[in-house]
Amino acid sequence: MTTRKEDFSKWYLETIQKADLMDYAPVRGNIIFKPDGYEIWEHIQDAMDSRFKEEGVRNAYFPMLIPEHFFNKEKDHIEGFAPELPWVTEAAGEKLEERLALRPTSETIIGDAFGKWINSYRDLPMVINQWANVFRWEKRTLPFLRTSEFLWQEGHTAHSNPEEAMARTMRMLDVYEEVVEGVLAIPVFKGEKTPSERFAGAEHTYSIEAMMQDGKAVQAGTSHYMGTKFAEAFDIKFLNMDNEHVHAYTTSWGVSTRLIGALIMTHSDDQGLVLPPAVAPVQVVLIPVGPWQKNPAILEKIEALQAELKAQGIRTRIDDTDERPGFKFNEWEMRGAALRVEVGPRDLENQTAIVKARDVDEKHTVAFDDFAQFIQTELDTMQSRLLEAARERQQAHIYTDIETLDELEAHIQSKQEAGELPGWVLAGWDGTEESEALIKERTGFTTRNIPFDGMVEPKTRCIVTGQPAKATVWLARAY
Amino acid sequence: MTTRKEDFSKWYLETIQKADLMDYAPVRGNIIFKPDGYEIWEHIQDAMDSRFKEEGVRNAYFPMLIPEHFFNKEKDHIEGFAPELPWVTEAAGEKLEERLALRPTSETIIGDAFGKWINSYRDLPMVINQWANVFRWEKRTLPFLRTSEFLWQEGHTAHSNPEEAMARTMRMLDVYEEVVEGVLAIPVFKGEKTPSERFAGAEHTYSIEAMMQDGKAVQAGTSHYMGTKFAEAFDIKFLNMDNEHVHAYTTSWGVSTRLIGALIMTHSDDQGLVLPPAVAPVQVVLIPVGPWQKNPAILEKIEALQAELKAQGIRTRIDDTDERPGFKFNEWEMRGAALRVEVGPRDLENQTAIVKARDVDEKHTVAFDDFAQFIQTELDTMQSRLLEAARERQQAHIYTDIETLDELEAHIQSKQEAGELPGWVLAGWDGTEESEALIKERTGFTTRNIPFDGMVEPKTRCIVTGQPAKATVWLARAY
Repeated sequence: MTTRKEDFSKWYLETIQKADLMDYAPVRGNIIFKPDGYEIWEHIQDAMDSRFKEEGVRNAYFPMLIPEHFFNKEKDHIEGFAPELPWVTEAAGEKLEERLALRPTSETIIGDAFGKWINSYRDLPMVINQWANVFRWEKRTLPFLRTSEFLWQEGHTAHSNPEEAMARTMRMLDVYEEVVEGVLAIPVFKGEKTPSERFAGAEHTYSIEAMMQDGKAVQAGTSHYMGTKFAEAFDIKFLNMDNEHVHAYTTSWGVSTRLIGALIMTHSDDQGLVLPPAVAPVQVVLIPVGPWQKNPAILEKIEALQAELKAQGIRTRIDDTDERPGFKFNEWEMRGAALRVEVGPRDLENQTAIVKARDVDEKHTVAFDDFAQFIQTELDTMQSRLLEAARERQQAHIYTDIETLDELEAHIQSKQEAGELPGWVLAGWDGTEESEALIKERTGFTTRNIPFDGMVEPKTRCIVTGQPAKATVWLARAY
Repeated sequence: MTTRKEDFSKWYLETIQKADLMDYAPVRGNIIFKPDGYEIWEHIQDAMDSRFKEEGVRNAYFPMLIPEHFFNKEKDHIEGFAPELPWVTEAAGEKLEERLALRPTSETIIGDAFGKWINSYRDLPMVINQWANVFRWEKRTLPFLRTSEFLWQEGHTAHSNPEEAMARTMRMLDVYEEVVEGVLAIPVFKGEKTPSERFAGAEHTYSIEAMMQDGKAVQAGTSHYMGTKFAEAFDIKFLNMDNEHVHAYTTSWGVSTRLIGALIMTHSDDQGLVLPPAVAPVQVVLIPVGPWQKNPAILEKIEALQAELKAQGIRTRIDDTDERPGFKFNEWEMRGAALRVEVGPRDLENQTAIVKARDVDEKHTVAFDDFAQFIQTELDTMQSRLLEAARERQQAHIYTDIETLDELEAHIQSKQEAGELPGWVLAGWDGTEESEALIKERTGFTTRNIPFDGMVEPKTRCIVTGQPAKATVWLARAY
C-alpha cells in the first residue's frame, strides 16, 4: 500500500478501492457506490434529513430533465453551468424538438414551479428539499470528490422578505456545520465565498471548508442567498399584505457525496479507513481468537455479546471465517470497523473481552458484565477523539502571519523542502479579482472563504497589493 | 368535484391535484412530486427498506447512464426496452462517441459490475438494491402510474444455484405482499405472469396485482428469476466448490412510485384522499372549534394533546387558521388526514375531545385522560378497517364461473348496462399467446397472473378454445 506521505492521491485511490467503497463505472468520470460507500452516504442522509425536518423543511422531487430554454432565463446561471451539461436529444426513436439537460442543479425547474405555486404572502415561506442525482460533465474527475454524476440534496426556499431569506441561508449553513463536525467529525471554517467563487446566479454564497490531511481544502457544503434574481427570472411574485405584487427572495443550499471523499481524506490512515462511529457501516467487529473452532462456547459468547450490542442499536459484524486473526484484523482495519472485539479461550475463562478502537493502539480488557456499556462509551469517546485530532491537525496547519505574496511563496517553498504541508493562510485581500487571480497564478492557492466577523483577527493590508484590505480570506490549495 | 361514479379517471386526476400530491412538469409525461406526495413515498421507502435490510439486502448506487452497447448484450432485454429509451448524445459541448441511455432498469450495468465482482462461490450470494430514478418514454402517461421519469427500487442478486435464486425471487415477492397489504392496506393477488407479460429477459416473472375501485388492475410489484440469461450476457461466472467456472443465477425485483397511484385509487373517495395511517403525512389533525379565539385555554389544550401524540411518534398538525371549521374539515378530508380531533369550549368543560376517522361517519367523545391511548388504537383500527374494506370490494368483484369468451363478453356487457364493474375473472387458459391476444381483442381484458397452487380452484378448460387448460389465470382490464 502506498502511504499518505509517499503520494496522498495514490493513497486515497488505493484506500477507497481496497476498502470496497467504490468501483469505476463504464462511463468516464462515473463511479459505482458499493454497499459500504453507499451506507456511509445513508448515514449522512439520515443525519441531515432529520435535522432538516426539525427546521421545517419538507422533501419533494422534481424532474431530472430540464428544457434548454429554462437555462436561458438567468444569464449568470447558464454561463456557469452550460460548459458542463449533458443533453438528451432523442427519445423513443425520435429527435426531440428541444434539448433536455440532465440537471446540474435545480434552481431553474424549481424556480418555474415556485412561480406557479406562490401567489400570496400566505404561501410563504416555501421550504423544500430534494435528494437527487445531478450531473456535471467535468474534465478532471476524482472518485467521490468530483464525478460526472453525483448524489446530493438541494434545498430551495422562497420568502417574503430579505431578512428571513438571509436567516434561512445562514441557518442551513449552521445545520451543515453541526452535521459535518458532529457526525462526520470534520472541523470546518465557515465564511462567505468571494464573488468570483459564488454559485452561478447567487448574490451571496456561504460555505463550510474542511482541511484534508494533505493540507488541501474541500468545500464541504454551500448555502446561497439569491435575493430576487431567480424570482425575477422565473416570475416568482406574490401579493403582499399591502396588496402589491412583489418578487420573493430565494435561497438554495446543498451537500453532496463529496462529503464521503472529505471523510476519508480527513481521518483515514496508511492501514485503511478510519471512520467516525456515527457513520461507520461496522461499528463493532467481533472476532473469535485462539483455537476457537474447538470450543463452541467462544462463538456462542460472541453471539451473546453481539445480541447485547444490537439491542442498543449498534451496528455489528461477527467474523467467523477461517482466516487467521491477524488477517482479519488487517481486513477490518482496512474497512474501518470502529471497534474490534476479540474473545479467545483465556478471555472466556476470565469472563472478559479485548476491545481495541481503530484509531489508537491501546487495548482494553473489559468484563463481560460491563461490555455493552463500555462499548457505547468507547464509541462516543472515539467520535469525540477523531474530531479533536482533526481539529488539532487543522489548527497546526494554519498560518496567520504572512503579509505579502513573496512571503507566501517563500512559506510554501520552505514547507515543501521540509516535506511539510503549506496548510492554509489567512490573508488580507483588497477585494479585486485581479489579486485573487495573481495569488492563484503564483502559488496555486485560491480564496476559500471570508470568515465571519469575530472568527479571526482581521488583516489590514492586501497580501498582493499592500493596499487596505477589504476583507480577510482563507487561502489554500483546494480539491 | 367529479365523483368516482361519474368519471373515475377524471376523479383521480382532480383528487391528486386538489390534495396537493403532484403537479405537472414542463417536460411531457413528467410530474413533480409535491411534499405530501413525496412523503407518502418516503413512508413506503422506510417500510420497504427496513424489511429489505432484515432480509440481508444492502443498498448501493450505480450510474444512471448506460452505454448503448450494454443493451445489445441481451437480445430480449433490448427488444423490450429500446422503444422507450431517451438518449444522451452530447455533453459539455461535444458529441459523444457512443450514445448513453437514461436507465430504464439496471440489469445491464449491474450485470457488468457483478461480472467483475464475482469470482468465487465465496462472493455469493450477492444481494444488492438501489433506490433510483428511471426513465421510460411511453406514449400514454398517467400521474404516478406511468410517467416518463419515475422513482423506484430495484434489487439485483446473484446466486450459486437455481434453488437459492428462486427462493430469493419468491421471498422478495412475499416482502412486497407484506408491505403492500400491511402498510398500504391494498390486498393483492400473487402469481406468475404469462410468458408474453414477462420482464424483458426474465425466465419467470412473478407479480402482486391489486384491484382498483374501478375494477381495473394495477401491477403493484414484480420479482424476476433470470436463470443464467443475464449471467451469460454479462459473463457472471464463478469458481464453484468443484473448481469449475460456472454461470451464476440472477434475480431482480422492484416496486415504484406507481404504488402511490394504486394507493389513491384503492382507498380515496369523492371527498378526497383516504390514506392508511401508516403512510398518511398527517395522522391526526387537531382543530379548535366554537369561539376558540376568545378562550386561549382551548388552543393550549390542543397543543398539550398534540405534545402527547408527538411523544408517541404520531404525525400531527394543528389547524389554527382563521377559516371556518367546516372549511377546515373539508380541507383535511381532501388531504387525507387519518383522524380529526375537535376541541371547543364545551369539550374543554367536559374534559373531552371529539375524534372522527376519515373513513367512517361516526364521531367519538374521548376523555382527555384516555386521549393518546384512544388515538393510537383508533389509528390501528382504521389501518385494519381500510384493508378489510378493500378486500371486501376485491372479493365482491371477482368472478370464477365464466367458462367461455362469449360468456365473458356477455358478463362485461351486462355489468356495464347495470352500471356495475366487470371486475376480475378467473379463467382457464390453454397457454397460447393466440388465446391471450384473442381475449384482449374481444374484451380488453389481459392476463394479470397465474395464481400459485392452492390459491384458487383450478379451471379445467381454456376460456377461448375449450381445450384442456394449461393454467388458470386472472383476467382484468389493467392500468
